Amino acid sequence: MISVVIIGAGNVSTHLTKAFLNADAIDVIQINSRKLDNIPAADIAIIAVSDDAIAEVSSKINSPLVVHTSGSVSMDLLKNTTRKGVFYPLQTFSKGKKITFKKVPFCIETTNESDYLLLEKLAKSIGKKVYRIDSEQRNSLHVAAVFVNNFTNHLYQIGSDLCETNQVPFEILQPLIKETADKIKKISPKEAQTGPAKRNDLKTIENHLNLLNNRQQEIYKTLTKSIQHGEKL
Amino acid sequence: MISVVIIGAGNVSTHLTKAFLNADAIDVIQINSRKLDNIPAADIAIIAVSDDAIAEVSSKINSPLVVHTSGSVSMDLLKNTTRKGVFYPLQTFSKGKKITFKKVPFCIETTNESDYLLLEKLAKSIGKKVYRIDSEQRNSLHVAAVFVNNFTNHLYQIGSDLCETNQVPFEILQPLIKETADKIKKISPKEAQTGPAKRNDLKTIENHLNLLNNRQQEIYKTLTKSIQHGEKL
Repeated sequence: MISVVIIGAGNVSTHLTKAFLNADAIDVIQINSRKLDNIPAADIAIIAVSDDAIAEVSSKINSPLVVHTSGSVSMDLLKNTTRKGVFYPLQTFSKGKKITFKKVPFCIETTNESDYLLLEKLAKSIGKKVYRIDSEQRNSLHVAAVFVNNFTNHLYQIGSDLCETNQVPFEILQPLIKETADKIKKISPKEAQTGPAKRNDLKTIENHLNLLNNRQQEIYKTLTKSIQHGEKL
Repeated sequence: MISVVIIGAGNVSTHLTKAFLNADAIDVIQINSRKLDNIPAADIAIIAVSDDAIAEVSSKINSPLVVHTSGSVSMDLLKNTTRKGVFYPLQTFSKGKKITFKKVPFCIETTNESDYLLLEKLAKSIGKKVYRIDSEQRNSLHVAAVFVNNFTNHLYQIGSDLCETNQVPFEILQPLIKETADKIKKISPKEAQTGPAKRNDLKTIENHLNLLNNRQQEIYKTLTKSIQHGEKL
Protein backbone atom coordinates (compact mmCIF):
# COMPACT_ATOMS: atom_id res chain seq x y z
CA MET A 1 0.00 0.00 0.00
CA ILE A 2 1.29 3.46 -0.90
CA SER A 3 -0.22 6.36 1.01
CA VAL A 4 -0.58 9.61 -0.91
CA VAL A 5 -1.69 13.08 0.04
CA ILE A 6 -2.59 15.38 -2.84
CA ILE A 7 -2.46 19.11 -2.18
CA GLY A 8 -4.56 21.27 -4.47
CA ALA A 9 -8.15 21.80 -5.53
CA GLY A 10 -7.75 22.26 -9.29
CA ASN A 11 -8.34 19.98 -12.27
CA VAL A 12 -5.09 17.97 -11.99
CA SER A 13 -5.50 17.20 -8.30
CA THR A 14 -9.18 16.35 -8.70
CA HIS A 15 -8.65 14.01 -11.66
CA LEU A 16 -5.63 12.34 -9.99
CA THR A 17 -7.48 11.86 -6.70
CA LYS A 18 -10.46 10.27 -8.46
CA ALA A 19 -8.17 7.87 -10.29
CA PHE A 20 -6.17 6.90 -7.16
CA LEU A 21 -9.40 6.29 -5.24
CA ASN A 22 -10.09 3.49 -7.74
CA ALA A 23 -6.61 1.98 -7.38
CA ASP A 24 -6.47 -0.82 -4.78
CA ALA A 25 -2.81 -0.29 -3.91
CA ILE A 26 -3.16 3.43 -3.20
CA ASP A 27 -4.47 5.16 -0.12
CA VAL A 28 -5.25 8.76 -1.07
CA ILE A 29 -6.59 11.94 0.42
CA GLN A 30 -6.92 15.33 -1.23
CA ILE A 31 -6.47 18.55 0.73
CA ASN A 32 -6.81 22.19 -0.09
CA SER A 33 -3.54 24.15 -0.18
CA ARG A 34 -5.02 26.71 2.21
CA LYS A 35 -5.29 24.14 4.99
CA LEU A 36 -1.65 23.20 5.39
CA ASP A 37 -1.55 23.36 9.19
CA ASN A 38 -2.61 19.77 9.71
CA ILE A 39 -1.45 17.63 6.81
CA PRO A 40 -1.80 13.89 7.41
CA ALA A 41 1.35 11.78 7.09
CA ALA A 42 1.82 9.94 3.77
CA ASP A 43 4.55 8.15 1.82
CA ILE A 44 4.23 10.67 -0.99
CA ALA A 45 2.92 14.24 -1.02
CA ILE A 46 1.81 15.39 -4.47
CA ILE A 47 1.70 19.17 -4.87
CA ALA A 48 -0.77 20.03 -7.63
CA VAL A 49 -1.14 23.77 -7.15
CA SER A 50 -0.37 26.73 -9.43
CA ASP A 51 3.33 27.06 -10.38
CA ASP A 52 3.78 30.20 -8.30
CA ALA A 53 2.58 28.48 -5.11
CA ILE A 54 4.71 25.31 -5.36
CA ALA A 55 7.75 26.67 -3.46
CA GLU A 56 5.75 27.98 -0.53
CA VAL A 57 3.50 24.93 -0.23
CA SER A 58 6.47 22.54 -0.43
CA SER A 59 8.23 24.36 2.44
CA LYS A 60 5.38 23.36 4.76
CA ILE A 61 5.36 19.65 3.99
CA ASN A 62 7.43 16.97 5.64
CA SER A 63 6.34 13.76 3.93
CA PRO A 64 9.41 11.63 3.11
CA LEU A 65 8.92 12.25 -0.64
CA VAL A 66 7.43 15.47 -2.03
CA VAL A 67 6.69 15.85 -5.75
CA HIS A 68 5.03 18.47 -7.91
CA THR A 69 3.00 17.89 -11.09
CA SER A 70 4.08 20.89 -13.14
CA GLY A 71 5.55 20.75 -16.63
CA SER A 72 7.42 24.01 -16.37
CA VAL A 73 8.83 24.11 -12.84
CA SER A 74 12.26 22.67 -12.01
CA MET A 75 12.51 19.97 -9.35
CA ASP A 76 14.92 22.22 -7.40
CA LEU A 77 12.16 24.71 -6.71
CA LEU A 78 10.70 22.32 -4.13
CA LYS A 79 11.63 23.69 -0.68
CA ASN A 80 10.89 20.66 1.51
CA THR A 81 13.83 19.25 3.45
CA THR A 82 12.93 15.64 2.60
CA ARG A 83 13.35 13.85 -0.79
CA LYS A 84 12.10 15.50 -3.99
CA GLY A 85 10.63 14.50 -7.31
CA VAL A 86 8.40 15.43 -10.22
CA PHE A 87 5.29 13.52 -11.26
CA TYR A 88 4.06 15.26 -14.42
CA PRO A 89 1.06 13.76 -16.23
CA LEU A 90 1.35 15.18 -19.77
CA GLN A 91 -2.30 15.72 -20.60
CA THR A 92 -4.90 18.48 -20.69
CA PHE A 93 -7.33 18.35 -17.78
CA SER A 94 -10.69 20.06 -17.82
CA LYS A 95 -13.66 20.05 -15.57
CA GLY A 96 -16.42 17.97 -17.13
CA LYS A 97 -14.14 15.94 -19.43
CA LYS A 98 -13.19 12.49 -18.13
CA ILE A 99 -9.54 11.41 -18.41
CA THR A 100 -8.38 7.90 -19.29
CA PHE A 101 -5.13 7.68 -17.35
CA LYS A 102 -4.19 4.46 -19.13
CA LYS A 103 -3.28 6.69 -22.07
CA VAL A 104 -1.60 9.52 -20.16
CA PRO A 105 2.22 9.61 -20.26
CA PHE A 106 3.71 10.16 -16.78
CA CYS A 107 7.00 12.06 -16.85
CA ILE A 108 9.00 11.24 -13.76
CA GLU A 109 12.12 12.82 -12.28
CA THR A 110 13.75 11.97 -8.93
CA THR A 111 17.13 12.35 -7.27
CA ASN A 112 17.52 8.64 -6.55
CA GLU A 113 16.55 5.36 -8.18
CA SER A 114 14.36 3.97 -5.38
CA ASP A 115 12.16 7.07 -5.54
CA TYR A 116 11.91 6.66 -9.31
CA LEU A 117 10.69 3.08 -8.81
CA LEU A 118 8.19 4.23 -6.17
CA LEU A 119 6.75 6.94 -8.46
CA GLU A 120 6.72 4.49 -11.36
CA LYS A 121 4.67 2.10 -9.21
CA LEU A 122 2.35 4.98 -8.31
CA ALA A 123 1.92 5.92 -11.99
CA LYS A 124 1.31 2.33 -13.02
CA SER A 125 -1.42 1.96 -10.41
CA ILE A 126 -3.59 4.19 -12.65
CA GLY A 127 -1.67 4.39 -15.94
CA LYS A 128 0.54 2.49 -18.35
CA LYS A 129 3.07 4.87 -19.86
CA VAL A 130 5.99 6.08 -17.75
CA TYR A 131 8.95 8.11 -19.00
CA ARG A 132 12.17 9.19 -17.28
CA ILE A 133 12.33 12.91 -18.07
CA ASP A 134 14.75 15.42 -16.53
CA SER A 135 13.86 19.07 -15.78
CA GLU A 136 15.35 20.38 -19.03
CA GLN A 137 13.52 17.81 -21.15
CA ARG A 138 10.31 18.47 -19.25
CA ASN A 139 10.63 22.17 -19.97
CA SER A 140 10.90 21.53 -23.69
CA LEU A 141 7.99 19.08 -23.52
CA HIS A 142 5.94 21.74 -21.81
CA VAL A 143 6.55 24.33 -24.50
CA ALA A 144 5.88 21.65 -27.16
CA ALA A 145 2.61 20.91 -25.35
CA VAL A 146 1.67 24.59 -25.59
CA PHE A 147 2.04 24.34 -29.38
CA VAL A 148 0.13 21.08 -29.86
CA ASN A 149 -2.55 21.81 -27.25
CA ASN A 150 -3.06 25.50 -26.34
CA PHE A 151 -2.21 26.92 -29.76
CA THR A 152 -3.90 24.13 -31.68
CA ASN A 153 -7.05 24.68 -29.63
CA HIS A 154 -6.88 28.36 -30.51
CA LEU A 155 -6.77 27.44 -34.22
CA TYR A 156 -9.89 25.32 -33.61
CA GLN A 157 -11.45 28.41 -32.07
CA ILE A 158 -10.68 30.45 -35.19
CA GLY A 159 -12.19 27.67 -37.32
CA SER A 160 -15.26 27.80 -35.12
CA ASP A 161 -15.44 31.61 -35.38
CA LEU A 162 -15.21 31.45 -39.19
CA CYS A 163 -18.01 28.89 -39.31
CA GLU A 164 -20.20 31.03 -37.08
CA THR A 165 -19.61 34.15 -39.17
CA ASN A 166 -20.60 32.27 -42.32
CA GLN A 167 -23.49 30.30 -40.83
CA VAL A 168 -21.93 26.90 -41.32
CA PRO A 169 -22.13 24.32 -38.50
CA PHE A 170 -18.74 23.80 -36.79
CA GLU A 171 -19.45 20.03 -36.67
CA ILE A 172 -18.59 19.97 -40.37
CA LEU A 173 -14.92 20.54 -39.43
CA GLN A 174 -14.83 17.87 -36.70
CA PRO A 175 -13.93 14.89 -38.93
CA LEU A 176 -11.08 16.93 -40.44
CA ILE A 177 -9.81 17.87 -36.98
CA LYS A 178 -9.91 14.24 -35.91
CA GLU A 179 -8.21 12.98 -39.07
CA THR A 180 -5.48 15.64 -38.75
CA ALA A 181 -4.69 14.39 -35.24
CA ASP A 182 -4.94 10.70 -36.23
CA LYS A 183 -2.81 10.99 -39.33
CA ILE A 184 0.43 11.78 -37.53
CA LYS A 185 0.34 8.43 -35.77
CA LYS A 186 0.96 6.82 -39.18
CA ILE A 187 3.03 9.45 -40.98
CA SER A 188 5.20 12.29 -39.63
CA PRO A 189 3.82 15.87 -39.47
CA LYS A 190 6.36 16.76 -42.15
CA GLU A 191 4.97 14.13 -44.53
CA ALA A 192 1.38 15.04 -43.59
CA GLN A 193 1.76 18.73 -44.44
CA THR A 194 -0.51 19.88 -47.28
CA GLY A 195 -2.24 23.11 -48.27
CA PRO A 196 -1.67 26.39 -50.10
CA ALA A 197 1.38 27.38 -48.00
CA LYS A 198 3.12 24.07 -48.68
CA ARG A 199 2.54 24.25 -52.45
CA ASN A 200 3.10 28.02 -52.55
CA ASP A 201 -0.37 28.62 -54.07
CA LEU A 202 -0.29 32.43 -53.92
CA LYS A 203 -3.72 32.89 -55.49
CA THR A 204 -5.48 30.81 -52.82
CA ILE A 205 -3.42 32.45 -50.06
CA GLU A 206 -4.54 35.89 -51.26
CA ASN A 207 -8.17 34.77 -51.50
CA HIS A 208 -7.98 33.44 -47.95
CA LEU A 209 -6.44 36.61 -46.54
CA ASN A 210 -9.38 38.58 -47.97
CA LEU A 211 -11.79 36.46 -45.91
CA LEU A 212 -10.05 37.12 -42.57
CA ASN A 213 -9.99 39.89 -39.97
CA ASN A 214 -6.67 41.53 -39.00
CA ARG A 215 -5.93 39.20 -36.10
CA GLN A 216 -6.67 36.10 -38.19
CA GLN A 217 -4.59 37.49 -41.07
CA GLU A 218 -1.57 37.93 -38.83
CA ILE A 219 -1.77 34.29 -37.72
CA TYR A 220 -2.34 33.14 -41.31
CA LYS A 221 0.70 35.03 -42.57
CA THR A 222 2.98 33.96 -39.71
CA LEU A 223 2.14 30.27 -40.08
CA THR A 224 2.26 30.37 -43.88
CA LYS A 225 5.72 31.94 -43.73
CA SER A 226 6.87 29.32 -41.23
CA ILE A 227 5.57 26.42 -43.35
CA GLN A 228 7.38 27.81 -46.40
CA HIS A 229 10.55 28.54 -44.45
CA GLY A 230 10.50 25.03 -43.02
CA GLU A 231 10.42 23.68 -46.58
CA LYS A 232 13.52 25.58 -47.55
CA LEU A 233 15.63 24.39 -44.60
CA MET B 1 -27.08 2.90 -61.44
CA ILE B 2 -25.19 6.18 -61.63
CA SER B 3 -22.25 6.28 -64.01
CA VAL B 4 -19.34 8.44 -62.98
CA VAL B 5 -16.11 9.44 -64.65
CA ILE B 6 -13.43 10.90 -62.36
CA ILE B 7 -10.77 13.07 -63.96
CA GLY B 8 -7.51 13.37 -62.07
CA ALA B 9 -4.68 11.25 -60.74
CA GLY B 10 -4.15 12.81 -57.29
CA ASN B 11 -5.15 11.75 -53.79
CA VAL B 12 -8.78 12.94 -53.94
CA SER B 13 -9.56 11.19 -57.23
CA THR B 14 -7.78 8.01 -56.18
CA HIS B 15 -9.54 7.78 -52.79
CA LEU B 16 -12.93 8.62 -54.35
CA THR B 17 -12.52 6.08 -57.14
CA LYS B 18 -11.59 3.34 -54.68
CA ALA B 19 -14.66 4.11 -52.59
CA PHE B 20 -17.05 4.23 -55.58
CA LEU B 21 -15.67 0.91 -56.87
CA ASN B 22 -17.05 -0.63 -53.66
CA ALA B 23 -20.48 1.00 -54.06
CA ASP B 24 -22.99 -1.25 -55.85
CA ALA B 25 -25.05 1.59 -57.28
CA ILE B 26 -22.09 3.39 -58.87
CA ASP B 27 -20.29 2.64 -62.11
CA VAL B 28 -16.97 4.46 -62.01
CA ILE B 29 -13.88 4.97 -64.12
CA GLN B 30 -10.89 7.18 -63.36
CA ILE B 31 -9.00 8.94 -66.12
CA ASN B 32 -5.90 11.11 -66.22
CA SER B 33 -6.52 14.77 -67.01
CA ARG B 34 -3.90 14.58 -69.78
CA LYS B 35 -6.01 12.11 -71.75
CA LEU B 36 -9.11 14.19 -72.35
CA ASP B 37 -9.51 13.40 -76.06
CA ASN B 38 -11.58 10.29 -75.50
CA ILE B 39 -13.62 10.64 -72.32
CA PRO B 40 -16.30 7.96 -71.91
CA ALA B 41 -19.87 9.16 -71.44
CA ALA B 42 -21.19 9.24 -67.86
CA ASP B 43 -24.07 10.74 -65.86
CA ILE B 44 -21.60 12.75 -63.77
CA ALA B 45 -18.06 13.91 -64.51
CA ILE B 46 -16.06 14.66 -61.35
CA ILE B 47 -13.08 16.95 -61.94
CA ALA B 48 -10.51 16.32 -59.20
CA VAL B 49 -7.50 18.16 -60.57
CA SER B 50 -5.48 21.12 -59.23
CA ASP B 51 -7.51 24.34 -58.87
CA ASP B 52 -5.68 26.03 -61.75
CA ALA B 53 -6.57 23.26 -64.21
CA ILE B 54 -10.32 23.04 -63.41
CA ALA B 55 -11.48 25.66 -65.96
CA GLU B 56 -9.53 24.17 -68.85
CA VAL B 57 -10.43 20.56 -68.07
CA SER B 58 -14.13 21.44 -67.65
CA SER B 59 -14.24 23.11 -71.07
CA LYS B 60 -13.43 19.76 -72.68
CA ILE B 61 -16.14 17.69 -71.00
CA ASN B 62 -19.71 17.24 -72.15
CA SER B 63 -21.22 14.93 -69.56
CA PRO B 64 -24.71 16.18 -68.58
CA LEU B 65 -23.48 17.15 -65.09
CA VAL B 66 -19.92 18.32 -64.42
CA VAL B 67 -18.70 18.95 -60.86
CA HIS B 68 -15.38 19.83 -59.26
CA THR B 69 -14.14 18.78 -55.81
CA SER B 70 -12.33 21.94 -54.75
CA GLY B 71 -12.97 23.87 -51.56
CA SER B 72 -11.72 27.18 -52.87
CA VAL B 73 -12.99 27.38 -56.46
CA SER B 74 -16.36 28.89 -57.30
CA MET B 75 -18.90 26.77 -59.20
CA ASP B 76 -18.97 29.44 -61.95
CA LEU B 77 -15.38 28.66 -62.89
CA LEU B 78 -16.57 25.46 -64.56
CA LYS B 79 -16.55 26.09 -68.33
CA ASN B 80 -18.63 23.15 -69.56
CA THR B 81 -21.84 24.01 -71.45
CA THR B 82 -23.87 21.37 -69.58
CA ARG B 83 -25.08 21.51 -65.92
CA LYS B 84 -22.65 22.38 -63.13
CA GLY B 85 -22.07 21.54 -59.51
CA VAL B 86 -19.58 21.17 -56.69
CA PHE B 87 -18.89 17.94 -54.81
CA TYR B 88 -16.41 18.87 -52.07
CA PRO B 89 -15.40 16.17 -49.59
CA LEU B 90 -14.09 18.16 -46.60
CA GLN B 91 -11.24 15.95 -45.50
CA THR B 92 -7.45 15.66 -45.79
CA PHE B 93 -6.35 12.99 -48.23
CA SER B 94 -2.89 11.48 -48.20
CA LYS B 95 -1.25 8.63 -49.99
CA GLY B 96 -0.88 5.71 -47.60
CA LYS B 97 -3.61 6.82 -45.17
CA LYS B 98 -6.98 5.12 -45.64
CA ILE B 99 -10.10 7.29 -45.56
CA THR B 100 -13.41 6.30 -43.95
CA PHE B 101 -15.90 8.12 -46.19
CA LYS B 102 -18.72 7.36 -43.75
CA LYS B 103 -17.25 10.15 -41.62
CA VAL B 104 -16.43 12.63 -44.40
CA PRO B 105 -18.80 15.60 -44.81
CA PHE B 106 -19.77 16.15 -48.45
CA CYS B 107 -20.42 19.81 -49.29
CA ILE B 108 -22.72 20.02 -52.30
CA GLU B 109 -23.71 22.93 -54.51
CA THR B 110 -25.79 22.79 -57.70
CA THR B 111 -27.89 25.15 -59.80
CA ASN B 112 -31.02 23.02 -59.59
CA GLU B 113 -32.68 20.75 -57.06
CA SER B 114 -32.68 17.54 -59.10
CA ASP B 115 -28.89 17.77 -59.48
CA TYR B 116 -28.60 18.31 -55.74
CA LEU B 117 -30.58 15.12 -55.14
CA LEU B 118 -28.41 13.24 -57.64
CA LEU B 119 -25.16 14.36 -55.98
CA GLU B 120 -26.65 13.62 -52.57
CA LYS B 121 -27.39 10.08 -53.76
CA LEU B 122 -23.84 9.82 -55.06
CA ALA B 123 -22.40 11.01 -51.73
CA LYS B 124 -24.61 8.66 -49.73
CA SER B 125 -23.44 5.69 -51.82
CA ILE B 126 -20.12 5.97 -49.98
CA GLY B 127 -20.79 8.40 -47.10
CA LYS B 128 -23.36 9.55 -44.58
CA LYS B 129 -23.00 13.29 -44.07
CA VAL B 130 -24.20 15.66 -46.77
CA TYR B 131 -24.41 19.46 -46.45
CA ARG B 132 -25.88 22.09 -48.79
CA ILE B 133 -23.08 24.66 -49.00
CA ASP B 134 -22.92 27.59 -51.42
CA SER B 135 -19.69 28.93 -52.96
CA GLU B 136 -19.26 31.68 -50.36
CA GLN B 137 -19.77 29.31 -47.43
CA ARG B 138 -17.44 26.78 -49.04
CA ASN B 139 -14.77 29.46 -49.34
CA SER B 140 -14.97 30.22 -45.64
CA LEU B 141 -14.97 26.50 -44.81
CA HIS B 142 -11.85 26.11 -46.89
CA VAL B 143 -9.97 28.82 -45.03
CA ALA B 144 -11.23 27.38 -41.72
CA ALA B 145 -9.91 24.00 -42.87
CA VAL B 146 -6.50 25.57 -43.46
CA PHE B 147 -6.46 26.68 -39.81
CA VAL B 148 -7.64 23.40 -38.28
CA ASN B 149 -5.68 21.14 -40.64
CA ASN B 150 -2.66 22.75 -42.39
CA PHE B 151 -1.73 25.13 -39.58
CA THR B 152 -2.52 22.65 -36.82
CA ASN B 153 -0.33 20.08 -38.54
CA HIS B 154 2.45 22.66 -38.67
CA LEU B 155 2.14 23.13 -34.90
CA TYR B 156 2.47 19.34 -34.56
CA GLN B 157 5.63 19.64 -36.65
CA ILE B 158 7.05 22.25 -34.27
CA GLY B 159 6.18 19.98 -31.33
CA SER B 160 7.99 17.17 -33.10
CA ASP B 161 11.02 19.41 -33.81
CA LEU B 162 11.21 20.46 -30.15
CA CYS B 163 11.09 16.82 -29.04
CA GLU B 164 13.84 15.89 -31.47
CA THR B 165 16.07 18.75 -30.34
CA ASN B 166 15.69 17.67 -26.71
CA GLN B 167 15.86 13.91 -27.29
CA VAL B 168 12.34 13.17 -26.14
CA PRO B 169 10.18 10.74 -28.15
CA PHE B 170 7.40 12.55 -30.07
CA GLU B 171 4.99 9.72 -29.13
CA ILE B 172 4.85 11.27 -25.66
CA LEU B 173 2.79 14.15 -27.15
CA GLN B 174 0.39 11.90 -29.09
CA PRO B 175 -2.18 11.36 -26.30
CA LEU B 176 -2.28 15.13 -25.70
CA ILE B 177 -2.80 15.78 -29.42
CA LYS B 178 -5.61 13.23 -29.52
CA GLU B 179 -7.27 14.57 -26.35
CA THR B 180 -7.06 18.15 -27.67
CA ALA B 181 -8.93 17.09 -30.82
CA ASP B 182 -11.44 14.93 -28.90
CA LYS B 183 -12.22 17.52 -26.25
CA ILE B 184 -13.92 19.98 -28.58
CA LYS B 185 -16.61 17.44 -29.39
CA LYS B 186 -17.81 17.81 -25.79
CA ILE B 187 -16.94 21.42 -24.98
CA SER B 188 -16.35 24.42 -27.27
CA PRO B 189 -12.79 25.49 -28.17
CA LYS B 190 -13.43 28.64 -26.15
CA GLU B 191 -14.22 26.62 -23.02
CA ALA B 192 -11.34 24.22 -23.72
CA GLN B 193 -8.69 26.96 -23.90
CA THR B 194 -6.02 26.64 -21.21
CA GLY B 195 -2.36 27.54 -20.88
CA PRO B 196 -0.03 30.43 -20.03
CA ALA B 197 -1.50 32.79 -22.66
CA LYS B 198 -5.03 32.29 -21.36
CA ARG B 199 -4.06 32.91 -17.71
CA ASN B 200 -1.55 35.63 -18.67
CA ASP B 201 1.30 33.78 -16.96
CA LEU B 202 4.11 36.08 -18.08
CA LYS B 203 6.86 34.18 -16.29
CA THR B 204 6.10 30.93 -18.10
CA ILE B 205 5.68 32.75 -21.42
CA GLU B 206 9.14 34.29 -21.02
CA ASN B 207 10.66 30.93 -20.06
CA HIS B 208 9.09 29.36 -23.15
CA LEU B 209 10.33 32.07 -25.50
CA ASN B 210 13.88 31.41 -24.27
CA LEU B 211 13.60 27.79 -25.42
CA LEU B 212 12.56 28.65 -28.99
CA ASN B 213 14.30 29.70 -32.19
CA ASN B 214 13.30 32.95 -33.93
CA ARG B 215 10.72 31.36 -36.22
CA GLN B 216 9.08 29.47 -33.34
CA GLN B 217 9.15 32.61 -31.17
CA GLU B 218 7.25 34.58 -33.79
CA ILE B 219 4.50 31.95 -33.89
CA TYR B 220 4.43 31.73 -30.10
CA LYS B 221 4.06 35.50 -29.73
CA THR B 222 1.44 35.85 -32.48
CA LEU B 223 -0.76 33.08 -31.08
CA THR B 224 -0.31 34.19 -27.47
CA LYS B 225 -1.37 37.71 -28.44
CA SER B 226 -4.39 36.38 -30.31
CA ILE B 227 -5.50 34.19 -27.38
CA GLN B 228 -5.23 37.18 -25.03
CA HIS B 229 -6.97 39.51 -27.46
CA GLY B 230 -9.76 36.99 -27.92
CA GLU B 231 -10.31 36.99 -24.19
CA LYS B 232 -10.75 40.72 -24.09
CA LEU B 233 -13.40 40.85 -26.78
